[in-house]
Amino acid sequence: MALSSTDTSRIGNTLAVIRTLRDQGPVARTDLGKLNGISSATVTSISSELLQQGLISERPPETPRSNGRGRPKTLIELKPNAACVVCIKLSINEIQLVVGDFAGQVRHSELHVVPTLTMSADDLAALLEDKISTVCTQQLKGFQRLAGICLAVQGVVSSQSGTVIWSPALSFRNAPVSARLAERFHCSVLLENDANCIASVLAAQSAYADCPNLVVIMLGYGIGMSVLINGVPYLGANGSAAEFGHSKYHPDGALCACGRRGCIEAYASDYALYRAAASHLELPSGDSAHPSEQQMQALTQLALNGEPTVQRIYAEAGRALGFGIANVLALFNPDLVLITGSGVRGFDVMQTAMHSAINDALVAELMGTTRIESCAWERDMTCMGGIALALHATDTQTLLDSD
Amino acid sequence: MALSSTDTSRIGNTLAVIRTLRDQGPVARTDLGKLNGISSATVTSISSELLQQGLISERPPETPRSNGRGRPKTLIELKPNAACVVCIKLSINEIQLVVGDFAGQVRHSELHVVPTLTMSADDLAALLEDKISTVCTQQLKGFQRLAGICLAVQGVVSSQSGTVIWSPALSFRNAPVSARLAERFHCSVLLENDANCIASVLAAQSAYADCPNLVVIMLGYGIGMSVLINGVPYLGANGSAAEFGHSKYHPDGALCACGRRGCIEAYASDYALYRAAASHLELPSGDSAHPSEQQMQALTQLALNGEPTVQRIYAEAGRALGFGIANVLALFNPDLVLITGSGVRGFDVMQTAMHSAINDALVAELMGTTRIESCAWERDMTCMGGIALALHATDTQTLLDSD
Repeated sequence: MALSSTDTSRIGNTLAVIRTLRDQGPVARTDLGKLNGISSATVTSISSELLQQGLISERPPETPRSNGRGRPKTLIELKPNAACVVCIKLSINEIQLVVGDFAGQVRHSELHVVPTLTMSADDLAALLEDKISTVCTQQLKGFQRLAGICLAVQGVVSSQSGTVIWSPALSFRNAPVSARLAERFHCSVLLENDANCIASVLAAQSAYADCPNLVVIMLGYGIGMSVLINGVPYLGANGSAAEFGHSKYHPDGALCACGRRGCIEAYASDYALYRAAASHLELPSGDSAHPSEQQMQALTQLALNGEPTVQRIYAEAGRALGFGIANVLALFNPDLVLITGSGVRGFDVMQTAMHSAINDALVAELMGTTRIESCAWERDMTCMGGIALALHATDTQTLLDSD
Repeated sequence: MALSSTDTSRIGNTLAVIRTLRDQGPVARTDLGKLNGISSATVTSISSELLQQGLISERPPETPRSNGRGRPKTLIELKPNAACVVCIKLSINEIQLVVGDFAGQVRHSELHVVPTLTMSADDLAALLEDKISTVCTQQLKGFQRLAGICLAVQGVVSSQSGTVIWSPALSFRNAPVSARLAERFHCSVLLENDANCIASVLAAQSAYADCPNLVVIMLGYGIGMSVLINGVPYLGANGSAAEFGHSKYHPDGALCACGRRGCIEAYASDYALYRAAASHLELPSGDSAHPSEQQMQALTQLALNGEPTVQRIYAEAGRALGFGIANVLALFNPDLVLITGSGVRGFDVMQTAMHSAINDALVAELMGTTRIESCAWERDMTCMGGIALALHATDTQTLLDSD
């Protein structure tokens, strides 16, 4: 059914109220109005409806202090157990399951080492069903319902069709995953690129509030990117936009995991750095095709300690990264490029070459006022973003359904 | 003043009605409603207001044919003389001035050969004022008012601040041009990249209606690009997005007009093709730094006739173009890449190498379903786009002011 502009505006205001309660915890009605620029009559009407739906509760006013003036305000807050969502982060040989409550707080987290690289698409689907089902039985008892699931996947995904097009964690391609889970668990299932999850967390931070056009680059085993245009992730025609890792540094360059040559990832990702170092040096034993965090930290330490070959490799990685960023600046002209991911561990030994490559590549007029910054990496940011996105999607769906 | 959602919807409906009348000529009220999905009551109310403002007129019903059934409908149409706009296209050593009427038709066009490359910013501003002023005196007598001006400029412009950041037609940089003209002629002044003007014309064509994410690449003296995201030109943080010509083919490659090395433009633009050919062959005399259309046609003919050196140069240009497009596909994942501009004259001798470079650069999963097509070049498309954009901007401004 087509919505009238009044319906659309009502849904927008309700989403704004829920988002404020999720970000700020208990808030008085008058403050909800002020924060979102909506009238107190509208806030009252929205909160009555949310109370009736069991999504919020009132918190009795605190006893005023002895010198307190005026009537204390009743605060309203989201009922954490009104619903929950599950975020599953899929990366190489590892899946992380996190349960978030309706208030957006993480209530449970578990990590499983599983051989993702040797699984078939059916194995993966069965594994995901099994893990979610177990979590439902053991962890979701107090919740009224499982409202949504977010799959956060490293690699190229089509969010629209719910298909994993291609992931470094998987040996198969073009696997539809969302539909089967949605049918099994009777809830909405989001499929998201891991970089988009992280970008949505960062974009909500006040430090980046003045950056509507934000590019987030994720360094790690592979290289991911998310582009927010006016705060919204840009997905492209089939959801595979922002594949920075496979944009080009050198037409006939190093071999990339994708099978082509000269991609930025073939120089600046963990596997590329380790591969280049292993061809010149004796490195500690381990899986050199999928180096662990420990292996990568040891390698980075060699560069920090001044080992000339490793320093040269990190500088070449920085140069590739810089040329790639120059293309991003020329094409997207964003407010800010933020570099994060586990690979920022090596950023200090890459950044001089990176900045110098950007300067070599672009005249000042094209660099404009874009800032380029790095940002410390938190392992759980992907799942936090996945939970926020799943909650937002289910809020919207619930409001549209009830309209 | 903040607009209510009712105001916004009213303005949107009015703009839709005006746009339909501009695209289709005289239309009956009932058809205006059907074409735009608005109620007949709203169409009646909007058309009364436009009649009162003198922007539309009624056309008496035509005499029904002898076998005609039903009452003939009164058509409404835009009054062509209600307002006019001027579009000025600035390119190397040439300015074109076009007057468009309120119905969007070109009413006057003139071309001036002027030494843009040796002008100062003040010279240019004085020249533009003089030419517009002369046009106002000689050509705009029948019009009620000059509603807007659009400057369509080759190069990097900041539409937001009305500044030409850098153009191959000019030897100076960072010149504010809009404010002075707006003050002198008391109307809104748009500053647009020429590629955005062309993209807006193409995007309105029914052949591309299914391509909300459209990339238009303009080959010519330089190489321009326009990216439409959901049909709207993407401008970036300071309006200099989509600088495809200065994205990179090769880190230490050929020298570009921008002063850096390895840009796509340094291989595939007119000046780059001519420069490469002139270093190997005796070419007809002429300005080899700014080759004319005639010089470029002669060069292209050499390639078409099988001259091996020129063929090799066009193939290398195609390869650079292909690698650049591969980056655009990886980063934007558009529905369609459309290649046009005067440089499409050489597309037949570039396209094999271009497609092969795209295949070398990108795996099938990242190419997705994006189509890559060329489109015959019409010299006047820039000005037609400029007129359409100027009319749309002044329509919007008028409605906001009268609200």
